Amino acid sequence: MCADRINRITPSPISGFPEWTPAERLLEQRMIDQIRAAFERYGFSPIETPAVERNAVLTAKGGAETERQIYSLTGLHPQSGGDARDYSLHFDLTVPLARYVAQHNNELVFPFRRYQIQKVWRGERPQHGRFREFTQCDIDIVGDGKLSLMADAEIPAVISTVFTSLAIGDFTIRISNRKILTGYLEHLGFDESESSLILREADKIDRQGTGPLLQALDDLPNGNAATSDILVLVQMSGSPADVLCALELIDGGDRFRQGVDELKAVFEHATAFGIADENIAADIGIVRGLDYYTGTIYETRLDDHPQLGSICSGGRYDDLASYFIRKTMPGVGISIGFTRLFSQLLQAGIVKPGSASAAQVLVTVPDESLMSNAIEVASSLRAADVNTEIFFEQARLGRQLRYASRKGFRFAIIPLPEDLEVARIKLRDMDAGEEHTVAMDDLPGEIARHIS
Amino acid sequence: MCADRINRITPSPISGFPEWTPAERLLEQRMIDQIRAAFERYGFSPIETPAVERNAVLTAKGGAETERQIYSLTGLHPQSGGDARDYSLHFDLTVPLARYVAQHNNELVFPFRRYQIQKVWRGERPQHGRFREFTQCDIDIVGDGKLSLMADAEIPAVISTVFTSLAIGDFTIRISNRKILTGYLEHLGFDESESSLILREADKIDRQGTGPLLQALDDLPNGNAATSDILVLVQMSGSPADVLCALELIDGGDRFRQGVDELKAVFEHATAFGIADENIAADIGIVRGLDYYTGTIYETRLDDHPQLGSICSGGRYDDLASYFIRKTMPGVGISIGFTRLFSQLLQAGIVKPGSASAAQVLVTVPDESLMSNAIEVASSLRAADVNTEIFFEQARLGRQLRYASRKGFRFAIIPLPEDLEVARIKLRDMDAGEEHTVAMDDLPGEIARHIS
Repeated sequence: MCADRINRITPSPISGFPEWTPAERLLEQRMIDQIRAAFERYGFSPIETPAVERNAVLTAKGGAETERQIYSLTGLHPQSGGDARDYSLHFDLTVPLARYVAQHNNELVFPFRRYQIQKVWRGERPQHGRFREFTQCDIDIVGDGKLSLMADAEIPAVISTVFTSLAIGDFTIRISNRKILTGYLEHLGFDESESSLILREADKIDRQGTGPLLQALDDLPNGNAATSDILVLVQMSGSPADVLCALELIDGGDRFRQGVDELKAVFEHATAFGIADENIAADIGIVRGLDYYTGTIYETRLDDHPQLGSICSGGRYDDLASYFIRKTMPGVGISIGFTRLFSQLLQAGIVKPGSASAAQVLVTVPDESLMSNAIEVASSLRAADVNTEIFFEQARLGRQLRYASRKGFRFAIIPLPEDLEVARIKLRDMDAGEEHTVAMDDLPGEIARHIS
Repeated sequence: MCADRINRITPSPISGFPEWTPAERLLEQRMIDQIRAAFERYGFSPIETPAVERNAVLTAKGGAETERQIYSLTGLHPQSGGDARDYSLHFDLTVPLARYVAQHNNELVFPFRRYQIQKVWRGERPQHGRFREFTQCDIDIVGDGKLSLMADAEIPAVISTVFTSLAIGDFTIRISNRKILTGYLEHLGFDESESSLILREADKIDRQGTGPLLQALDDLPNGNAATSDILVLVQMSGSPADVLCALELIDGGDRFRQGVDELKAVFEHATAFGIADENIAADIGIVRGLDYYTGTIYETRLDDHPQLGSICSGGRYDDLASYFIRKTMPGVGISIGFTRLFSQLLQAGIVKPGSASAAQVLVTVPDESLMSNAIEVASSLRAADVNTEIFFEQARLGRQLRYASRKGFRFAIIPLPEDLEVARIKLRDMDAGEEHTVAMDDLPGEIARHIS
């Protein structure tokens, strides 16, 4: 061969761009299918937006940190690429949603319920657990002018359906309302920037304790007087009934009261949606997306794996698309950072890749003269919706069964002349290592029964 | 509001980056699901590779035209992006497959059957029907050192399952073997570059007739003498039996003969896989990927829409990954350029978007006092795997039903106090415009029966 003329390149992974084995990908795909089914169960419809948006769209809102992470396109060769530098890979699915809703405003029917499961890209410094390419699973309900608080109450039911179906362990959806903390701080006389500072420090309690918050309050003119009241509030968490009771006792001003009332309504209706008590909690300390969410906020944690942090978060916002359309479009939504979750679940052994094949059955061909029999039995299984592979290469049966075992097939089928003569065929259960013969006509039914 | 402070951007489409409405996306997703199910039916397993590959990987094979279309990454801001310029968006799924197989060679079990359904990007000049971002659906069977010709025979069965399941009309899979034409030209004494030229012109017969081919032969030293024989061969197409008969009569040398024998074996076994005669044809004139395919080649056309060209093509190649690994890895595969196909099917009205909602049922709320009843009935439907949306906004029933109609729900449910009292509920068939009441307990079964 002319191998010597080839300038061979040894491929290696690109940091931050994950790539899975076939068995891992099968598992990932099954989990994404489950998430998608849960979203569709509640009437969310799929949209997909291009991988790129115009730079003006991506940077409309500003935010220097996000902008520094944007990957722009360019031609590989200087003279190519055309207008590529005018657009960049999206870094989340929220900006694309806002742009989509504005651009297609006349074609859409509101309230608009969409889900979007797509890759996003962020040029982060590579470090453990940080991905530059990852899949997000987002849902949002977007209203035209207004949106019922019932939408906020339904979101926990969707979260609950997703994580019940994923079966990755007990989980708790923690809910608060942004107005409770901001209203309270306003009531105490803090201005907006002081309030932001306090919330930012309160957000660190989980990882760094109350130290930073106490320090910040100490530094503020009238911070010390409020310290104990604020500490009580940001550490208030537990069953919805208990927390709501405690909140009733606090005099926090109008906005605070509105937040408490909304939170109460969300919990009342969440129960009507059939969410189990153990899957839901109130947690006034959760602080998310300071400049984005304006009402209900959600976080979700695995009870046995708190180190994973929130695996599904979101909330209510007043205005989705003001940068793109002169219309007020309130909404509520959540996002699952799927790639990070999946990679952590794999690492922690909470999910385990199984078979490396999408087929459950391998039809072996013990002798080439049996090829047409093998094709026939495979065709009958495929017609019965059983995913089936045929082993085409010439090899001894033992090697064929080793292949079945390495790829993780559930069953191997072994056509032998003596069985075929009496319209039977040998079925090997690869897990149990047991073989028995089955009437040819019963085979699809027998296998379908085992794999369903 | 502070609307005046906002520098509003009017969003507009980016040429070549398609974006669908929710109804179109639902249809696209259903079709991709059908393709995926067909691939899995034959034991192809999913892999996914990052959107980017190292530039050295993408350009290993060369090909100036392809390279000019590559989108490279760069930081949006000059000081950011890190090593982004070292990698680029993939322009097909074949180079990523070759790199994947080389990089993970020790973890994979061969023959390796993979499918890959992903976006690819090409910086083409925007023009009608050309996409810069599009979805490809690829399958390949890759062997380690060798690969049975049976794999070539199975591919048409997969194609047939895909297009039978998509139900977009009658189709014909046209098959040839590259060795027939190249062997014949070699036998006639043409050298490699003359042979390439002849094949390139033969490829134009469909669109430009035989003129360019005749001209090219006229220009070649010993072209004229061969003209009539070559014309017969490149225009030879029809039923496998007829074409094979005609090929038997030609003395075309060893390589030609090997091609005929392989083609014969492929057709023989393709029949065993149960492909209908009307879905398969021999066509010696098909010429694909001159420098890539080495044996069997496939094209697929819709009988009633020849203007769409080949909607699924591929073939056998001798060596997938020689640029990345010192190992011979023959394979056979096909690719569906899904976005182009989907957009053409939409334009030609061959497929039509239906509902804009992933849910079949809308539960209306005629009065806010009935909200908990609405939630209850929605929960019972969801528990029975019926995708259900609740109309949360306060609005008159007429507006709620108009919403149901505009989004294309199959059923609306109307909870009314007088019905609920006797454990019944009103069901409206949105297509028929008919209403009747159903016992609450029978509702999920009644609806499931209609939508399955």
